[in-house]
Amino acid sequence: MKEDISARLDLLRQDMRKEGVDAVIIPQTDPHQGEYLASHWQVRRWISGFTGSAGDLLVAADGGAWLWADSRYWLQAAQQLENTGIDVMEDGKPSTPSMIAFICATFKPGSVVGIDGMLFSINATKSLQQGLEKIGIKLKVDYAPADRIWTDRPALPQFEVFVHTDDLAGESISSKIERVLAQLSEMGADSVFISDLAEIAWVLNIRSSDVSCNPVVTSFLYIGPGGGVLFVDPAKITPEVAAHLATGGISCRPYTEAIEYLSQLPIDSKVLVSSAQSAGALLTALGERAVEGGSAVSMLKAVKNNVQLEGVRNAMVRDGVAMVRSLIEIERTVNEGRPLTEIGVADILLRHRKAGDRFFDLSFDTIAGYGPHGAIVHYSATKESDADVTLGNLLLIDSGANYLDGTTDITRTISLGKPSDAQRHDFTLVMKGHIAIATAIYPEGTTGHQLDVLARINLWKEGLSYLHGTGHGVGHFLNVHEGPQSIRLNDTHAPLIPGMITSNEPGLYRAGKYGIRCENLVLTTDAFTTDFGHFLKFETLTLCPFDLTLFDTSIMSDSEIEWVNNYHAMVCDRLLPHLNADEQEWLLEKTKPLTK
Amino acid sequence: MKEDISARLDLLRQDMRKEGVDAVIIPQTDPHQGEYLASHWQVRRWISGFTGSAGDLLVAADGGAWLWADSRYWLQAAQQLENTGIDVMEDGKPSTPSMIAFICATFKPGSVVGIDGMLFSINATKSLQQGLEKIGIKLKVDYAPADRIWTDRPALPQFEVFVHTDDLAGESISSKIERVLAQLSEMGADSVFISDLAEIAWVLNIRSSDVSCNPVVTSFLYIGPGGGVLFVDPAKITPEVAAHLATGGISCRPYTEAIEYLSQLPIDSKVLVSSAQSAGALLTALGERAVEGGSAVSMLKAVKNNVQLEGVRNAMVRDGVAMVRSLIEIERTVNEGRPLTEIGVADILLRHRKAGDRFFDLSFDTIAGYGPHGAIVHYSATKESDADVTLGNLLLIDSGANYLDGTTDITRTISLGKPSDAQRHDFTLVMKGHIAIATAIYPEGTTGHQLDVLARINLWKEGLSYLHGTGHGVGHFLNVHEGPQSIRLNDTHAPLIPGMITSNEPGLYRAGKYGIRCENLVLTTDAFTTDFGHFLKFETLTLCPFDLTLFDTSIMSDSEIEWVNNYHAMVCDRLLPHLNADEQEWLLEKTKPLTK
Repeated sequence: MKEDISARLDLLRQDMRKEGVDAVIIPQTDPHQGEYLASHWQVRRWISGFTGSAGDLLVAADGGAWLWADSRYWLQAAQQLENTGIDVMEDGKPSTPSMIAFICATFKPGSVVGIDGMLFSINATKSLQQGLEKIGIKLKVDYAPADRIWTDRPALPQFEVFVHTDDLAGESISSKIERVLAQLSEMGADSVFISDLAEIAWVLNIRSSDVSCNPVVTSFLYIGPGGGVLFVDPAKITPEVAAHLATGGISCRPYTEAIEYLSQLPIDSKVLVSSAQSAGALLTALGERAVEGGSAVSMLKAVKNNVQLEGVRNAMVRDGVAMVRSLIEIERTVNEGRPLTEIGVADILLRHRKAGDRFFDLSFDTIAGYGPHGAIVHYSATKESDADVTLGNLLLIDSGANYLDGTTDITRTISLGKPSDAQRHDFTLVMKGHIAIATAIYPEGTTGHQLDVLARINLWKEGLSYLHGTGHGVGHFLNVHEGPQSIRLNDTHAPLIPGMITSNEPGLYRAGKYGIRCENLVLTTDAFTTDFGHFLKFETLTLCPFDLTLFDTSIMSDSEIEWVNNYHAMVCDRLLPHLNADEQEWLLEKTKPLTK
Repeated sequence: MKEDISARLDLLRQDMRKEGVDAVIIPQTDPHQGEYLASHWQVRRWISGFTGSAGDLLVAADGGAWLWADSRYWLQAAQQLENTGIDVMEDGKPSTPSMIAFICATFKPGSVVGIDGMLFSINATKSLQQGLEKIGIKLKVDYAPADRIWTDRPALPQFEVFVHTDDLAGESISSKIERVLAQLSEMGADSVFISDLAEIAWVLNIRSSDVSCNPVVTSFLYIGPGGGVLFVDPAKITPEVAAHLATGGISCRPYTEAIEYLSQLPIDSKVLVSSAQSAGALLTALGERAVEGGSAVSMLKAVKNNVQLEGVRNAMVRDGVAMVRSLIEIERTVNEGRPLTEIGVADILLRHRKAGDRFFDLSFDTIAGYGPHGAIVHYSATKESDADVTLGNLLLIDSGANYLDGTTDITRTISLGKPSDAQRHDFTLVMKGHIAIATAIYPEGTTGHQLDVLARINLWKEGLSYLHGTGHGVGHFLNVHEGPQSIRLNDTHAPLIPGMITSNEPGLYRAGKYGIRCENLVLTTDAFTTDFGHFLKFETLTLCPFDLTLFDTSIMSDSEIEWVNNYHAMVCDRLLPHLNADEQEWLLEKTKPLTK
């Protein structure tokens, strides 16, 4: 393997010298700025051998190669890159320069840095350009060596596209396009070019399996006043899908023709592109036609309609049933001393979810972390790490599914055996934050950033904290992470609007001991209107009990205890009809009212 | 008076025609972007007759004049501008255009709009320029007609400057200048031109009485590597002050020579100016020498040293004694049925504060609002509005002073006679927010914006709210409002840092009935360091009881009640030694422990 890497770097450097490129940046991304990449776009992984989900590579033509890895991956990168000639740059350490600063310090004025302009957003391209040109380094934005050197490069994903029917989506393709066009005129554009795969899937009511856990279609979408064009591999489009797209005035062209199409649009076109999500190469192709801005779709997609909400509520029942059955099986397996590992836990969850109606796929790889593994926030068990799940510690399970009628994402932390007082105290602090979010009422216009502290203040008062966001937007039979809203430490400026679904997932991680996270999905809905304005609230959608043995009611207020009891009553109410007698008994036992 | 206004507008229009100006904007500000204006800078008030503290005037050469008033001033502006030929533009109404939009719609391309470039910040000048030039209107940035038409214009303030000695300021002028210069090098500048009067007073350890309630010196300050220049009326500088300034390498030049001095600096100078606070005219004078940025002083000034903090703590004792004596006098006057008005309340407070050591001036005009007047957030009693203060409603008193060793700002809401259950409920909700801020603990880097919701969530849950900020920074024997930190709905991006003093003042306003606000000043201090990082907390500085009769303990948690009792115990502890027997008895009665 290490020899392969050397050979690949050699091939790359030959190509660089031929093209007059002194350094090349190989980013871990695709032309859609996606969170997960199809194998076709795993260029950085192929060249470097590093398998982390983040980290960009810099290669110099005359020797030297560097990979910027964030703290999650410092160790893994060091192991995987040993003896490859690629140095690990520990990103996030104060002593580690940014890639731009490093290039400026390492390469002489007059040098040429090459990038594939399709793999850098407009914003990223500009800041790179500005940073390098300040000291006279040239940025060549059309250097795309991957096809030339990666001779057995996997093809683009070949999955068939299918229609997400109106009875599930709740809005026709033509209605959505009309609403997008209305947004455009407010943004000073007459047309839009969309690179974001989830946005395309939402607008066109189409889905596929192109990206693991994300039911999207690898494509670009142009929508103009006279109709639209979907740039997609024609082999993926059945006559049925083509007919569906035609109802929205959308025709299809090959995926690879997008850039050429843009460059031939009438010169007075005003095409909206997203500065953060569209590739810099689009700007070059559009020239004066480009209108740089935000997304015309993100906010529309985030606000779910009543059909979607009914679907999600139904999916939550199926997901809750699968969770209850999984928890019963996990608990009994461990209690009876039968062997179980973290991967085994994930398998149990998948089996019970698969048995439910309208199951399509997981919405992300299940995180099942036992004991110390629960404290690793982005943990995903591998064959090597897979730990036994036994009595004596906490098990953190973060999982979810894409059903045809909705997307779920739930985290439960359960105690296998009797928890310690410290575990109960920690869990209860996390739940106090969860409940504070769940019960918040807030004026129209409030952002998740403003509410975030409600989830954290009880932890902060004891010198504790968690560094991930408290909540992210969730798609509808789409990506489990979506914008624009979120509940987090950093301001995202997007208000919470009725119809938005957001996760509520505070946590606490004791390194080397255990991790705790408590996650439900919540829906923003109308609360009431008073002399002081219109107020909104959250409705909790997720249906699954929290572990009663982990509550320390001595540090809970009456209203917090009441919230847990009411929530559990709702869980019983919705799930009991779908469970057998044995499961019903288990759930009733697990949802007994808490008392002081 | 109305005839005067017509004559003044005529004079202005003659001048405009002579100078080829089609429209002029007369803003309510001074060259220092101050909150309060000396009479010399009250040009808009003189021309229009409108006395509000905000609102810009637009005058057309060939007829038409418009004043943009915010909602506080819609009524007052309508009354004061009636029959003057000036129309009120109700700013904030969706149907009211911005001044830029109005100019673009009203004046033809090719028109000339004049402004005095000293009265618009760099940012404001740029956005005006961009807005107008888009449609071909020219901005003339050196149109300053005031001196020509306002023949009896008041002179610049003539108060003598005095030294704020090191034993009070805690840091010498030379140490401060050294720290400012260190900031500059981080900001890419070698020198700085400061327009903000509070920043100048802080850096140079000088004070005066140039602006009502703000003990500042009308001046500009240039600091470069070889020393600095204070641009100030030479008549104000005593030999003693000149000698003091010399210890920091600061010489004096006339106030009016600042611009010329800047334009003659060496061409390779890098002079920092604040985009938000420095006048656009400075940019013109500096040309290539200008480095636009934030303030090099604001953060240094906000973090108080130990000498300042000791001073503030001592000032709080004097201010607390004055508050206690005032509350006793107000309460007895009303209880005994003797006449008292809102202005009378302000007079009582001033008399007791003046009697204290080191009193210099009020830090702002006292707000004493009885009953419905308490619900008007920016209320200040005038002869016309001055209401009787009697038994039967709430009295809101927001007041403060500048002592030589610190600045105070306190709001108490007291019930005259027995409060209603509704009043007690409202007051307790506000106090729950006040206590949530007072007891917050938060990681380093946290902003007041993040904490703000803690003060509001209990109100929001009942459909209530207040629209002002929860807290503002407070100077040290300086302006009662200072940045960069604040606690508010809008993000200000400035973290809370140990040594910062901020107000904690949630409120609730029942229009037509009463207003409630509860304000103490709090100091950010270190709390503790854990595995999860370093945490900060607030120490409450203000010393004065809250009205016990207004608490509804049935909606308070044990820890909230404990906070009130502990706070009152501290108030007694610090104030009792300074009170006579009668006053001691009153305070002990007013600080009896609350119980459920």
